Order: sequence, then structure tokens, then C-alpha cells
Amino acid sequence: MDSRTSGCQTFYPGTPPVIVGYGSAAGGKEQEGPLGPCFDHISPDDTFGEKSWEKAESKMQSLALDAALKRACLHTADLDLLLAGDLLNQCIGSSFAARTAAVPYLGLYGACSTMGETLALAALLLGGGYGQYAAAVTSSHFCSAERQYRTPLEYGSQRAPTTQWTATAAGAVILSRSGTGIRIPCVTIGKVRDKGIRDAGNMGAAMAPAAYDTLRAHFSDTGRSPDWYDLIVTGDLGSLGHQIVRDFFSRDGVNLDHYTDCGLLLFHRKEQDVHCGASGCGCSAAVLTAYLLPGLKKGLWRRVLFCPTGALLSPTSTMQGESIPGICHAVVLEGGGI
Amino acid sequence: MDSRTSGCQTFYPGTPPVIVGYGSAAGGKEQEGPLGPCFDHISPDDTFGEKSWEKAESKMQSLALDAALKRACLHTADLDLLLAGDLLNQCIGSSFAARTAAVPYLGLYGACSTMGETLALAALLLGGGYGQYAAAVTSSHFCSAERQYRTPLEYGSQRAPTTQWTATAAGAVILSRSGTGIRIPCVTIGKVRDKGIRDAGNMGAAMAPAAYDTLRAHFSDTGRSPDWYDLIVTGDLGSLGHQIVRDFFSRDGVNLDHYTDCGLLLFHRKEQDVHCGASGCGCSAAVLTAYLLPGLKKGLWRRVLFCPTGALLSPTSTMQGESIPGICHAVVLEGGGI
Repeated sequence: MDSRTSGCQTFYPGTPPVIVGYGSAAGGKEQEGPLGPCFDHISPDDTFGEKSWEKAESKMQSLALDAALKRACLHTADLDLLLAGDLLNQCIGSSFAARTAAVPYLGLYGACSTMGETLALAALLLGGGYGQYAAAVTSSHFCSAERQYRTPLEYGSQRAPTTQWTATAAGAVILSRSGTGIRIPCVTIGKVRDKGIRDAGNMGAAMAPAAYDTLRAHFSDTGRSPDWYDLIVTGDLGSLGHQIVRDFFSRDGVNLDHYTDCGLLLFHRKEQDVHCGASGCGCSAAVLTAYLLPGLKKGLWRRVLFCPTGALLSPTSTMQGESIPGICHAVVLEGGGI
Repeated sequence: MDSRTSGCQTFYPGTPPVIVGYGSAAGGKEQEGPLGPCFDHISPDDTFGEKSWEKAESKMQSLALDAALKRACLHTADLDLLLAGDLLNQCIGSSFAARTAAVPYLGLYGACSTMGETLALAALLLGGGYGQYAAAVTSSHFCSAERQYRTPLEYGSQRAPTTQWTATAAGAVILSRSGTGIRIPCVTIGKVRDKGIRDAGNMGAAMAPAAYDTLRAHFSDTGRSPDWYDLIVTGDLGSLGHQIVRDFFSRDGVNLDHYTDCGLLLFHRKEQDVHCGASGCGCSAAVLTAYLLPGLKKGLWRRVLFCPTGALLSPTSTMQGESIPGICHAVVLEGGGI
């Protein structure tokens, strides 16, 4: 059975797996945002009771996973696979959380596209008949990201208008190979796209080409138009990247109605002074688990195209004058009524 | 169809995919080792003509992939999926190589277990019916690893006897969903295991528990004994970690004949002064593509259990006093005659 036409980027799990649980954890700034009341766990001081930002990030993943398992009425021992990744060097946020989970573990790195990558892979693996339950988890933490990618918090540097604010948040989704619930009937795996943007303070512009590319591939592969979806959501392009994608499609004569971006949904952009919006793996993970999945469950939408985006740079690549490659993975989420 | 019994870590692709191509690239020290004549591409000065060690590492991945595609009589456009990862922060070795490949890309992070993780996932995805051809690629580079994980080369620090030497090498494997060749009938996905080793200069001891755990799970899940295999090869435990795994099994009353480690095969350990042996993603990748797969093809062995191992630490986690979690993924390779 070939669940993909040659040359396509879209794959169809044999039997679409369903989402049986989801959970989230977030920090203080996120608590003050529009989704504040929606998170399962909050740490107003962003420490989650831990002694370092990195340990706090692992703790967030564990808490998000616990909340997801609770909703699914499952325990970690029921999981056949755990797929996770984050922004920390060597993805230690994920692997140290996985250390306590004791589940077969697949570490992934897709930068801020990781929620899409983990969800897509989990869906494909279950759809391929490998196991009954899989967990897809990711996180980011403002403080650990600033230290690693930019400067220590105390440095107090100015942020350019094009910058975004890395979310302190984690999201976990539990998929089941069978049952009822929000289904994942297909996913589109992105290609690495680089249009020469070198400004590490403008991730939105760097990632927008990859989002455009994956969306176009998805529409072409499936024969669908954007209108087939009630909502299309990219991961963290922010206001500028979001507009760039709109412009790209506009040039093609395609109007992207019902298109938004997780980076625009996590904070009150002006009041919370996050410039172009939220970013980080945790951004799309938090918006997915605290807003999109509950909304699909309530019937606010029937079909959502969830497209987390990532910038595959490192401080080293930037220092070596490299441009910023981007990637975007698209996951179709169909509400229970379909 | 459930291709896994609940509680097991072992998964069986519906139709075992086959290896249709493999390729390798390596540096000067590796050229002087026992596998020197076996690599497809060599750069005696480790630069591969590039201006930085990181760019050299990306170049190695591209060269290894080219060699694999050539053996498979394929082009990058034929690939449905590219799975890759490495040791660099944000896995830039892989993503910058993937930038030129223009293939649907899944970035992975399993530290030095990445050759096992990419190969296992590629096999499962093709076995699940997702695409016809997939590439699994990984690399490491001594110079980029030293700078990132330890000290700049010029620092000239002493190396403890338990240390290993990060390989400058890349390996690529092309799998096909159908056809004839070396088959991958099953894989065992590891769990993160941590027995409290804190010495970042003794990775072998840190990873050995994970290797033991995955091997035990594999034997238990499949009902096989170690003797079922002509050869069992861990990724880069080195001499100490290799002995520890032997001791663990010995305590269980199990004799691990025909058991070796890629870290013991890449260099002339004493003459090349690599202490406990080679390490890095590139170690197992190079030994797989330059020695194990050619050997399976020639009929030296019929069944090989290939078990790359990884240490999931980072310099940050070590500085924060954390112990070192390990992971090991096992991939069964069956020669064409079976």
C-alpha cells in the first residue's frame, strides 16, 4: 500500500489516529496572555520549582505530559512511543524529561516546528501499525533560550521591532491508533527552504518561505484549496512572517482567509510588548493544546491545518555568516463530527 | 494490524524494507585506521575544502549521501524522505546539508545513537507504506565536537584514559520499500536510561546501561538469544563500555560471543592514541557503511544486530551537576541470502 504519490510530500496514515489527550504548561507572561486561563499548569515565576531554567523546561514537559495522560485516562506505562524535542542544545529539556517517563523514546530536532514534527511522526507511526498509543511533546523556555541563543537576561539589550518572544510553555498530545476523537488523516512533511535571510532578529521572514512552500505542497498534493479548512495556523511566524505568507499567496491569486499564526495568539502583542509575537516550540505547542484542540473538540472548527514552522539556524551558523534555513510541517486536524 | 505486542519496544515493518545504497565520508585520522581504504570520500585535513568545521560536517553528509545514491542508482529527487541528525547545536550539520537536498526532511536528535534512530525510523516509515525511498544520514566531526563540547583544539588539554575520540565521519543509507538486498525486519526503540554516571569523560560507562537495556528488551521481545546473530555491534561504547555490557550480561549468565563495538573498529586504538576508542554519530555511521553493510553484502555475516548508543548530555547539563542519560536503538540487518 503506497500512502503517498511519488513526488508528493503528503502522507496518509492507513487508519487516521485520534487525539485522546492533550496537556499544557506555561509561565507567567503566558498566564497574562489571552490563553492564560486555558493552561493546565502555570508557574508565574517560570521556575516550576526548579533550580535552573533548563530543569524548569524539563519539568514543564513532564507536567504537560501528565495532564495529557490524565485527559486520556492513561499512564506513561501505556505509551508505546514518546516523541519529543526542544530548542536547548542537545535537546536536554526533552531527554531529561524522557528519563523519568521510561517509554521508548525518539528525540527530534525541528527547531520551532517540533510540535508539527512530533505530531506528524507519531500519527504516521501509529497509522503504520506500530503501537497503540504515542505521545508527542515539546517545549521552549524564554530564559533558557535567551541565554543560549542571545544574551543573559541581565544584559538588557534592545530588541528590534522584528523580533519575537520565545514562549515559556510546553504541550503534549497523546494519540491512539483507534477510537474516536479529533483525527489526523494526513500530514505534509516539509523541505528545508532558505531564501537568504541572515537576520537572526527576523525569524518570521526567514521561516515564511518554508511555510509558503509546505502549504503550497499540501494544497497541491491533496487537491484542496485553503477554503477547505476552517482555520489554517502557522507555528510562530509572528506578524511580519504571517503577512509575508499572505503576500506570497496573494501573488498567486489565492486569498488566505481564516489564516492566523500561533505567534499572534499567545500574547497581547502590544500590551505585553512582544513586538512581532510569540515564538519557540512551546508557542505552537501551547496554542495547540490550550486553544486549538479544545476548540475542535467543542466544534468551533471542523478542519484545522496546523503548520508549525522552524528556523534551523544556530548562533554558530549565524556567526559564520550563514543565512537561515526554515522548515514547516503541516498536520490536518479533523474534529470529531467528521 | 498491530506490529508490536503491548509493553514491547520492538517493531516490525509490515514488509521489511531493503538497503539499496550506502555511502561514507571520513577524515585523515580515520583514513589511517583499519577501515581507511573503505570510505567513499576522504579529506586528509578534515576540511573537505570548507572554511569551517561545521561546514565541513555538512559537506561530509552531502558526500556520503551522494555516494549512497550512486550505489542505489538514484537521485535526490527520488527520495521521499530524508532523516538526519548530528551532534552540533541545533543539528546544523544536517539541516544545512538538507538545504541542498530538497527532500521532505525529518530532523532527529539521538546524540551518537542517531545512525540507529534514523535507520530505524526510515525502516518503520517505509514499512508503514509512506513512500518508496528514504535516506538515513548522520555525521560527527572531531574538531566541531571538541570546540562545542570540550575545548578549542589549541587548548591542548590532557585526555583521561576513559575518553574516546569523536570520529570525523558521515554515513548515509538509502532504504527502499521493496526489492532485494539487506533487509531490516525489525527494530527495537530504546528508552532513556540513567545510572548516575556524571563523568563526561567516561561516556562508555554512561551509555552502557542503555545498551544493556535495549539489548535485553530486544532479546526478550523477539524470543531470540544473542547467538541468533552472527554479530552484535554497539555504536560507540568503547573498550570500557563494551566490557561493562559484557559484564552485565555475564551476571545474567549470558555469554555475549560475537559482540563488538564500532568504537573499537574505527581506529588502531593504541597506535592512534584514541584511549577507549572512537565515538560520535559518525563512528557507527562510518563502520556501518564502510564495513558492516559491505560485509553483509559479501556474506561475511547473515544476521547483524546494529545498536548505536548515545549520551544525552550537554555541557550545560554537566555544569548543572546532572548525570548522563543514555539511549540505544537496535536495528536488525539480515543479509541478502536470508
